[in-house]
Amino acid sequence: MKQVILFCAFLIGVNSYSQTDQEVIKTIFNTSLSNGQSYEWLDHLSNQIGGRLSGSLNAERAVQYTKEELDKLGLDKVWLQPVMVPKWLRGAPEHAFIETTPGETINVNISALGGSVATPALGVKANVVEVHSIEELEILGREKLEGKIVFFNRPMDPTLINTFSAYGGAVDQRGSGAKEATKYGAVGVIVRSMNLRLDDFPHTGGTNYGDTPINKRIPAAAISTNHAELLSSMLQLDSNIKFYFKQNCKQLPDVQSYNVIGEITGSEFPKEIIVVGGHLDSWDLGGGSHDDGAGCSQSMDVLRLLKESGIRPKRTIRVVLFMNEENGLRGGRKYAENAKLKGENHIFALESDAGGFTPRGFSFDCSDEEFKQVLSWKHLFEPYLVHSFVKGGSGADIGPLKDGKVVLAGLRPDTQRYFDYHHAATDTFDAINKRELELGAAAMTALVYLYDKYGKSN
Amino acid sequence: MKQVILFCAFLIGVNSYSQTDQEVIKTIFNTSLSNGQSYEWLDHLSNQIGGRLSGSLNAERAVQYTKEELDKLGLDKVWLQPVMVPKWLRGAPEHAFIETTPGETINVNISALGGSVATPALGVKANVVEVHSIEELEILGREKLEGKIVFFNRPMDPTLINTFSAYGGAVDQRGSGAKEATKYGAVGVIVRSMNLRLDDFPHTGGTNYGDTPINKRIPAAAISTNHAELLSSMLQLDSNIKFYFKQNCKQLPDVQSYNVIGEITGSEFPKEIIVVGGHLDSWDLGGGSHDDGAGCSQSMDVLRLLKESGIRPKRTIRVVLFMNEENGLRGGRKYAENAKLKGENHIFALESDAGGFTPRGFSFDCSDEEFKQVLSWKHLFEPYLVHSFVKGGSGADIGPLKDGKVVLAGLRPDTQRYFDYHHAATDTFDAINKRELELGAAAMTALVYLYDKYGKSN
Repeated sequence: MKQVILFCAFLIGVNSYSQTDQEVIKTIFNTSLSNGQSYEWLDHLSNQIGGRLSGSLNAERAVQYTKEELDKLGLDKVWLQPVMVPKWLRGAPEHAFIETTPGETINVNISALGGSVATPALGVKANVVEVHSIEELEILGREKLEGKIVFFNRPMDPTLINTFSAYGGAVDQRGSGAKEATKYGAVGVIVRSMNLRLDDFPHTGGTNYGDTPINKRIPAAAISTNHAELLSSMLQLDSNIKFYFKQNCKQLPDVQSYNVIGEITGSEFPKEIIVVGGHLDSWDLGGGSHDDGAGCSQSMDVLRLLKESGIRPKRTIRVVLFMNEENGLRGGRKYAENAKLKGENHIFALESDAGGFTPRGFSFDCSDEEFKQVLSWKHLFEPYLVHSFVKGGSGADIGPLKDGKVVLAGLRPDTQRYFDYHHAATDTFDAINKRELELGAAAMTALVYLYDKYGKSN
Repeated sequence: MKQVILFCAFLIGVNSYSQTDQEVIKTIFNTSLSNGQSYEWLDHLSNQIGGRLSGSLNAERAVQYTKEELDKLGLDKVWLQPVMVPKWLRGAPEHAFIETTPGETINVNISALGGSVATPALGVKANVVEVHSIEELEILGREKLEGKIVFFNRPMDPTLINTFSAYGGAVDQRGSGAKEATKYGAVGVIVRSMNLRLDDFPHTGGTNYGDTPINKRIPAAAISTNHAELLSSMLQLDSNIKFYFKQNCKQLPDVQSYNVIGEITGSEFPKEIIVVGGHLDSWDLGGGSHDDGAGCSQSMDVLRLLKESGIRPKRTIRVVLFMNEENGLRGGRKYAENAKLKGENHIFALESDAGGFTPRGFSFDCSDEEFKQVLSWKHLFEPYLVHSFVKGGSGADIGPLKDGKVVLAGLRPDTQRYFDYHHAATDTFDAINKRELELGAAAMTALVYLYDKYGKSN
């Protein structure tokens, strides 16, 4: 540690003990941009391991890899926290086509939604009813929907500046479309991909059947935005065309997995815990690079950057790589449950789960008083253009920690490109920019440094 | 026009005459994001035309294409402004290798710098002296440099948040390296590409021999960052290795070209002119997509978005697509010269020449009083996160308009990825994100709308 401090003091030409917050934060950013490790870790997670669906072999390889990497950092403690997770299998590649007349078909790109049941072994073929909302189902009723495939085709709203708002405004079709269409006797559901771009990639994501009995569940798949446009325009010309799809996904019993955790124990207030994290699982179609390998590698680098910058935390800083955000949130729930059981005192938790793009700011789920405190730090982030601090929202995995006391926060990167990659085969390492990822890691480290130094305001 | 106004009023549900600035700007952003044309124009410029080096056939095709497209917009006036431009040819593909021992070679990726002379027909082969600054040449002197190839290898500084600052801190090696090395009898210059990323692509860009007599000029080329690292590490092992390169570029006499100009004539103050523009020429290695097809297509869309949003400008709004920014700035100079000759009154000029990425704000070259005015508008841009307004800097092409009265401004997009593409074969349309480009066009339109509505403060 002494060497690190000396090295850091040398770097910026002053004794680190007398550094201002500005100077410490500059050291953090310099270190991330010239000697960051987030990019290298993410390369491995994306390219050597790849998609990390909960319960898969890849997810377990990611647990092992990140634990080993945390072990190398010389933290005070590294451990695995067991958690049972769902195991859903996509099975053989899906197959789908539009049939204009018997024998005349056009193949289209689909991807089974996570949690979907299989089609019958020979697939399902039916007429298609295009709708733009779940409410439309009730208007159409069983008469119009029975025996049909329901095609949800409401696009994300391109005029919303924050693309997560556009996602929030469209994702009910994917999340509840199958459950709702079942009620009217539909035989399958096709959902326009949650993607603002017109391209050929289907975007998967969870669908939730609620309490629909297993034998009543109907198969659901996402269709690429280009093919959604095609299907819609063909339906306008001829409402009698048929849609065929086949998928043989399967839900197996839960399996054992782990949250990966490492910590630097606080030197003065070890019982005040600060958490930084992302989720280690991903969907299976891409490399899980933006969602959420980026957040994991950034969170790991927060602890390394603190050490490299010569900072000895007063409070306990913990990195948590949560398992199973995508289709269960079991890791987030388990972590919070354990924390409660042990009576742990979390003062601040920060999640990065919105992509590895240029950081624009943070969102905070906290009281007005607590928000005042973070606003007092905002000027420290302005030189890095990370100066959009908003109230509301944090991250899914840290949500279960909410207890009216802990401050929850989310890193807010630029959102414009995120849904080009989200849950699709395009979410690969080549879509990551090294500097953008490193700026995010540095911004997170700076905020953790401030919470560690000053504690929570009340 | 009436139809457009009615359409717009319908869009936002209020009569456009009573719209607040917030409402008008929202309409502008909505229109750009849901019905923009910048992306389509840039697709054509990048993919159907491609790199548009001054004096090339492609540059002339771009002049013709953009004039035709402006003609279709129903502007009040569209014209070509003649300007003589340099015509430099790259010639046959460059070839270069490192020779460890006679006959043992490793090919490396280079690109002749714009304006460079050719090597002798058989190429040039010599020992290499690696330096990190122009000042180092004087210390080494003729004794160490005569007959050698000088290798400038100072990287861009990764710790600077604004990558244009990092570019500014390294580009003297490319701009003046050849001119300076000539003085000490060097036979060639190799410059590390202006690129923050380690990759295999050489990045070209202008070099300036100043008043070095033509027969004394030595050839200069950029080397990819990966191969710069390789060459440097090989030199550390053995300073006797040789470098070979061959290029047969050529400077031809100046040729006729054009600035492409279109305008909406002001309804109340037609003699107060607002200019918005980018440069139509590009280097030849990529598609000139970020540099600066993006700025051209955004600027064209500013006039279209004003019309589509039902705004009838009081002042004259002019789009100028400048020719020959990259190796001469002849278009920018010609435009300013003509404006002066005609006694035109430019009140505001805005350039987009920093890539088609998410807009972060604007820079302003203006008085303190004038800066106060734009700061009073800043809150209007905050909902779009385009809220970094800084003083200093605008754009190269509009620079010659500076007269102590006109306010000059530059769109400031996110800078993190820009130098991955700048002047390289990677600057292609697939590196453009449609929404990011459209947000930039909308932000520019909003600022032009405000200057048109309120005029200049003094």
